[in-house]
Amino acid sequence: MAEPLRIALAGLGTVGTGVIRLIDTNREMIAARAGRPIEVVAITARDRGKDRGIDLSSYVWVDDMHAMAKRADVDVVLELVGGSDGPALTLAREALEAGKGFVTANKAMVAHHGLELAELAAIRNAPFAFEAAVAGGIPVVKSLREGTAANALTRIYGILNGTSNYILSEMERTGADFDEMLQAAQDQGFAEADPAFDIGGIDAAHKLAILAAIGFGTRIDFDAVRTEGITKVSASDIAQADALGYVVRLVGIASLFGEGDDRRLLQRVRPCLVPFRHPLAAVTGPTNAVVAEGDFSGRLLFQGAGAGDKPTASAVVADLIDIARGQSGAPFSVPSGALVQCVPADPGDRVGRDYLRFTVADRTGVLAELTAAMRDANVSIESLIQHGRDKDGGEVQVAMVTHDGPENCVSKALELLEGSPNLTAPPLVMPILKD
Amino acid sequence: MAEPLRIALAGLGTVGTGVIRLIDTNREMIAARAGRPIEVVAITARDRGKDRGIDLSSYVWVDDMHAMAKRADVDVVLELVGGSDGPALTLAREALEAGKGFVTANKAMVAHHGLELAELAAIRNAPFAFEAAVAGGIPVVKSLREGTAANALTRIYGILNGTSNYILSEMERTGADFDEMLQAAQDQGFAEADPAFDIGGIDAAHKLAILAAIGFGTRIDFDAVRTEGITKVSASDIAQADALGYVVRLVGIASLFGEGDDRRLLQRVRPCLVPFRHPLAAVTGPTNAVVAEGDFSGRLLFQGAGAGDKPTASAVVADLIDIARGQSGAPFSVPSGALVQCVPADPGDRVGRDYLRFTVADRTGVLAELTAAMRDANVSIESLIQHGRDKDGGEVQVAMVTHDGPENCVSKALELLEGSPNLTAPPLVMPILKD
Repeated sequence: MAEPLRIALAGLGTVGTGVIRLIDTNREMIAARAGRPIEVVAITARDRGKDRGIDLSSYVWVDDMHAMAKRADVDVVLELVGGSDGPALTLAREALEAGKGFVTANKAMVAHHGLELAELAAIRNAPFAFEAAVAGGIPVVKSLREGTAANALTRIYGILNGTSNYILSEMERTGADFDEMLQAAQDQGFAEADPAFDIGGIDAAHKLAILAAIGFGTRIDFDAVRTEGITKVSASDIAQADALGYVVRLVGIASLFGEGDDRRLLQRVRPCLVPFRHPLAAVTGPTNAVVAEGDFSGRLLFQGAGAGDKPTASAVVADLIDIARGQSGAPFSVPSGALVQCVPADPGDRVGRDYLRFTVADRTGVLAELTAAMRDANVSIESLIQHGRDKDGGEVQVAMVTHDGPENCVSKALELLEGSPNLTAPPLVMPILKD
Repeated sequence: MAEPLRIALAGLGTVGTGVIRLIDTNREMIAARAGRPIEVVAITARDRGKDRGIDLSSYVWVDDMHAMAKRADVDVVLELVGGSDGPALTLAREALEAGKGFVTANKAMVAHHGLELAELAAIRNAPFAFEAAVAGGIPVVKSLREGTAANALTRIYGILNGTSNYILSEMERTGADFDEMLQAAQDQGFAEADPAFDIGGIDAAHKLAILAAIGFGTRIDFDAVRTEGITKVSASDIAQADALGYVVRLVGIASLFGEGDDRRLLQRVRPCLVPFRHPLAAVTGPTNAVVAEGDFSGRLLFQGAGAGDKPTASAVVADLIDIARGQSGAPFSVPSGALVQCVPADPGDRVGRDYLRFTVADRTGVLAELTAAMRDANVSIESLIQHGRDKDGGEVQVAMVTHDGPENCVSKALELLEGSPNLTAPPLVMPILKD
């Protein structure tokens, strides 16, 4: 059998120890599939003494992560340190500069610096792979980079954050409100102590930017992702959506508008209304799911565990096996120089249906004001329901669903209503996912 | 840009013309992703004069398919002729013998002769790929070969035949019986004039054998697949399943029993009861879906169009792009010499729950006979319902669901009942899919 692929592993949190366990558990099978053994030849982490529930005494411990990246006995540096910048980014640059392969699960770093790293990898002819950065154990990076490579994709969307999906689907199941279910998610270990990145949509936005770059062959543009989290979704929104035939999911959507040089890219993470019959409606708990729509493949769905040490380790080691096989192509599906700089689309140009929820004072004339604003902004209302008086009295919620129309018009209507004394809280807009 | 990858295409049915359309439509994008252009340099089919709704005048027509396979100006032979043996198999051997790459959508041929062809490909160091042979446009061959490569898979299962799934889900939706929905499927173009391979489960069995070989690293063994079609599933079975919380789907299941050298492989295609909450229950119409359960990845689901000219072309061209990139690994995930000969498992050893439906004479003592047979065979009954008298009178249906138990016991019970004058039709057994 050929020479082993020698890995230097930086970062020994749950994913790092998961990778060590996986390589150990499936060692022979991995060697058979990779064509050669995969061996961890050096490890490092911040705290050597910490008990990680795993015997690391047989591994060479290196104190200086940066020296480790340059060791002659290392083929691939595996970064599981985390953080978009700082030591992780320095390590990535050092590894690739040294001509080592570089594998990471770090979505934030790839979203922010993926293009720079891909360019560096191309110059040094070094493999650079990040399957584990998106959707845990689901091989969706590979599927978009290779499986759908023959297709012009028109839309990539999905449920990209397990924490948010757990909270929303538990709100749906129990009827409880957001705060209570966030607490439950934290108790269950599905949400971090600081859940801001998850419930604010940032984590999903990192993943969406990566998928869009791969699927559309565009230069990754995280800053252009318009992101809105789930904190404003209330139990009554979910009940209302249910009555209308929808569930609420935090969906990242990347879609292309226009043709050729006129192509514009819309990237968004938002809570959406998903029709019951859509496969994403059946995705509950901390599961992830990605849909890719190709001009020839049609709609493809990839679903599985979106996080966790074992699924993430599965994705990391799949990258290592590809590298061991000598099968690592352009990280973003085409050589970095061929990636297109795509202008962000104006979200106002989107044509679709929306759910609007207003919290208003319970008095005469409110509905007339709302509907007049819709009329003046050319928003066509499909249905309108005034529901659930607040237990404290004085406030009611009005939910509307619009007909297909430009999002500009909805924004205009909201502008017209801005400052109205009848609105007792900011309105919430959620798009209805197109089937 | 590098030299083009030159394709000789044999077979110009819907998939063949679909491939030509796809390569033409997405030419530049394919070249960018493949690193070089992909060009069809020769075509052939049985009838040159046939109108295929596409202009083929710019392609070099070759009358002799077998001569085409050996042309010096051809890198890859693409076989879309069909048939497990005959000209397709001869072409495959000739192409690989000549050291050409060989790409096919021919599930029957791969199921029967895939191992021989993989061995030949290894000897000649020629790429051999068949993504399009399984589940149309879903990149599931790649996903099992590479995406889940780090995992020991324990079970691979799915809805692998669109025709059967269309019929079953339409029976479910309309309440109609099998014959009527088969006719509807034929009218809609979802079933062939001769649907035997589809509704008899053979087509699904071909695909299952391929997936099992890739996922488990075993020598492909189509003959060991136990296959049962959907023709015996009645409207009343579907209604009964619904009342119990299940839908009926034709599911191909491959699972490993035992450890190490004692591993045995069970491959089966059968109508199954699928719990409402399982993702396969939501798969309706001619869609395919494959689930792979890995020891680290957990449960992964891949879903999409299972057939059709465009999705199949998408899979074919994905293979061509891989070959153009120089990224074609072992067709069955490990070198053919390392594939394990796995003994077929005894289906009687399976432990699970079953749905049993008896059609019996409507007279006293029948239930007593049925339940006595269950008791004598050690089958524990979870529920029993006697439902729907036949409109002609004289016959009733008795449906039972068993507790978890060895399948042997159920078979024994059926043996005990064989020849009973109370049974007016052969009983139907459908397993309940484990969640």
